[in-house]
Amino acid sequence: MIPDSFKGTMSSAEICEIMSNAILSVAPGADIRQIPVADGGEGSVDAFLRALGGEKIYTGVQGPFGENIRAYYGLVDGGATAVIEMAACAGLPLVEGRANPSLTTTYGVGQLMLDAVHKGAGKIIIGLGGSSTNDGGCGAVAAAGARFYDSGGAPFTPTGGTLSRIASIDISGIDSSLGSAEIIAMCDIDNPLHGKEGAAHVFGPQKGADAQMVEMLDAGLANLGEKIKSSLGIDISGMPGAGAAGGMGAGMAAFFGASLKMGIDVVLDTVHFGEMIAGADMILTGEGKIDGQSLRGKVVIGVARRARASGVPVVAIVGDIDKAAEGAYAEGVSGIFSINMLAEDFSKAKLHARGDMEFTVKNLMRFIKTLEK
Amino acid sequence: MIPDSFKGTMSSAEICEIMSNAILSVAPGADIRQIPVADGGEGSVDAFLRALGGEKIYTGVQGPFGENIRAYYGLVDGGATAVIEMAACAGLPLVEGRANPSLTTTYGVGQLMLDAVHKGAGKIIIGLGGSSTNDGGCGAVAAAGARFYDSGGAPFTPTGGTLSRIASIDISGIDSSLGSAEIIAMCDIDNPLHGKEGAAHVFGPQKGADAQMVEMLDAGLANLGEKIKSSLGIDISGMPGAGAAGGMGAGMAAFFGASLKMGIDVVLDTVHFGEMIAGADMILTGEGKIDGQSLRGKVVIGVARRARASGVPVVAIVGDIDKAAEGAYAEGVSGIFSINMLAEDFSKAKLHARGDMEFTVKNLMRFIKTLEK
Repeated sequence: MIPDSFKGTMSSAEICEIMSNAILSVAPGADIRQIPVADGGEGSVDAFLRALGGEKIYTGVQGPFGENIRAYYGLVDGGATAVIEMAACAGLPLVEGRANPSLTTTYGVGQLMLDAVHKGAGKIIIGLGGSSTNDGGCGAVAAAGARFYDSGGAPFTPTGGTLSRIASIDISGIDSSLGSAEIIAMCDIDNPLHGKEGAAHVFGPQKGADAQMVEMLDAGLANLGEKIKSSLGIDISGMPGAGAAGGMGAGMAAFFGASLKMGIDVVLDTVHFGEMIAGADMILTGEGKIDGQSLRGKVVIGVARRARASGVPVVAIVGDIDKAAEGAYAEGVSGIFSINMLAEDFSKAKLHARGDMEFTVKNLMRFIKTLEK
Repeated sequence: MIPDSFKGTMSSAEICEIMSNAILSVAPGADIRQIPVADGGEGSVDAFLRALGGEKIYTGVQGPFGENIRAYYGLVDGGATAVIEMAACAGLPLVEGRANPSLTTTYGVGQLMLDAVHKGAGKIIIGLGGSSTNDGGCGAVAAAGARFYDSGGAPFTPTGGTLSRIASIDISGIDSSLGSAEIIAMCDIDNPLHGKEGAAHVFGPQKGADAQMVEMLDAGLANLGEKIKSSLGIDISGMPGAGAAGGMGAGMAAFFGASLKMGIDVVLDTVHFGEMIAGADMILTGEGKIDGQSLRGKVVIGVARRARASGVPVVAIVGDIDKAAEGAYAEGVSGIFSINMLAEDFSKAKLHARGDMEFTVKNLMRFIKTLEK
């Protein structure tokens, strides 16, 4: 099973638990593989560890305001691959009550990356969700050894509020093992670095920026884009996803040569999905709402496309079904079943979503069992 | 398929149409039998005719106020069985704006019964739903030849308002072919003839009776029960279902020797359900809400119990699913699927119930097709 979370009701790990228990109650001997889908935000490291096994490494790094905190990342694939969620050291919950995207830094993220490659990881997966920062990844790459200079030639570590002061960038000092590592950023949004659809305008307010700060942050990101171009020869500002996580998308791509990929594709690659489903009877997936957007590659369709060649049926257990979801069948989905059991508003339905999920999966398993007789 | 209606959204005949079209769109050659479930009220005759074929006979009878109207009944089984819905000549819609259960009569129902037996029907199925009357079936049996006398020995045809005047009853004059016919009343309620749970108190108000009239009607029904006992030697007043249709349940049983049966059981018997499902791949049934009450023998469970020995899977397509519906599996239901696709209130959901029904059945058929591969 490989379900996405249901926003506002259940995490993907919870859904895996409920589905597994429901299946086992009908088919006690079932061999079940749980792959809770990491979305790049908080919980992503745990999701990968649950799916693949591995180690969770705790280490001291700088928090969003430069304070000392203990953060973590995961090592999977026998230590060859590290999984980092930037929320672990630059996340919104860490700044609750003092959110300020002009001051916060991704410095700790760079420290986690360094720790991982120094432990031997040749590949880093980094989830960009849930950030409190708007520093374009400058903190992270500064931790890795890059230098930012102002117009007077003085080195400094930019935050959201000081991006405008960057005059030049030197990435030659980046740690060599990090420089040679393969870095993949999980990123499901396609906002550009700056402008009306950019990081500051779209995500700044939820990180605590008022209208004036948004303009200031946006100007800073625009300057960062220019200086990346002039110093590194890379034009990053229009790249889809550059605006993810306060410009972290841009920084990851420009400074670390990271590729930005849809989260579900990263998960499917990392768990070696193709091998995992060989011989499976069924793949259970799901998401909170299946609709036209889902067809652009959210979890259910991502799974269906990847499973298609295998011939293993893909069944989606979802919250709401929009009629546009009919297109899912053409993408390889065999059945779509809603957990909605009563005609009632979401505010009420979410209160018994867990029980509804359990009923729906049990019902389906019983039904399949009958058909198999 | 043998679905009940979904109250407030779709009739059982409509549901049959939607289900059939959905199935045929996925499995073009499917051999489908439609059995819309008659509930004994308006539309019951059409439902039986759709399921079985036959003739719809139109004939002149007395309406609720004794006026001449044209009503109908159905002949099925090559004319051997008549299907009557009392709503056709004593129904609430016929008295709209002038409802008065103290004055209305079931006389026309007796005329339809006579017409049917004179055309050769040896069995009559009579649906007791949707009546505007409270005459305890006195009108119907008077039309058939029975006589009611007051304390002065004068014959009269009682209505709800004059039941108290009955002193004795003579049913020796009942038409002989009607007397020898097998009569089965469809009756899903178990209210007694009179008292707080009786016909007048429970159903009088929706037929237009005010509090005072309810007391008067209830006293009349109590007198009818006494006089049935003293004149015919039958104690009917406490019988479950005696209070159906303004005491029509009592009259049918006492005057005509009718048996009162659950509607779904009558339907299953009449369509020869056991023979019909032999060799079927699946039975689709459904009702607006499956819950604890359903387990007492509403449509889905009635169907499941009857289908059980055949081994043909029974699938319920329903509106709401209450958790108590889990008991349905033990009764032989293989799967329960809700048409609720969005977490929203019934007032909104009912507006697209037809489309949701279509999607749900199509999805299920596609899913089954995949599993069969």
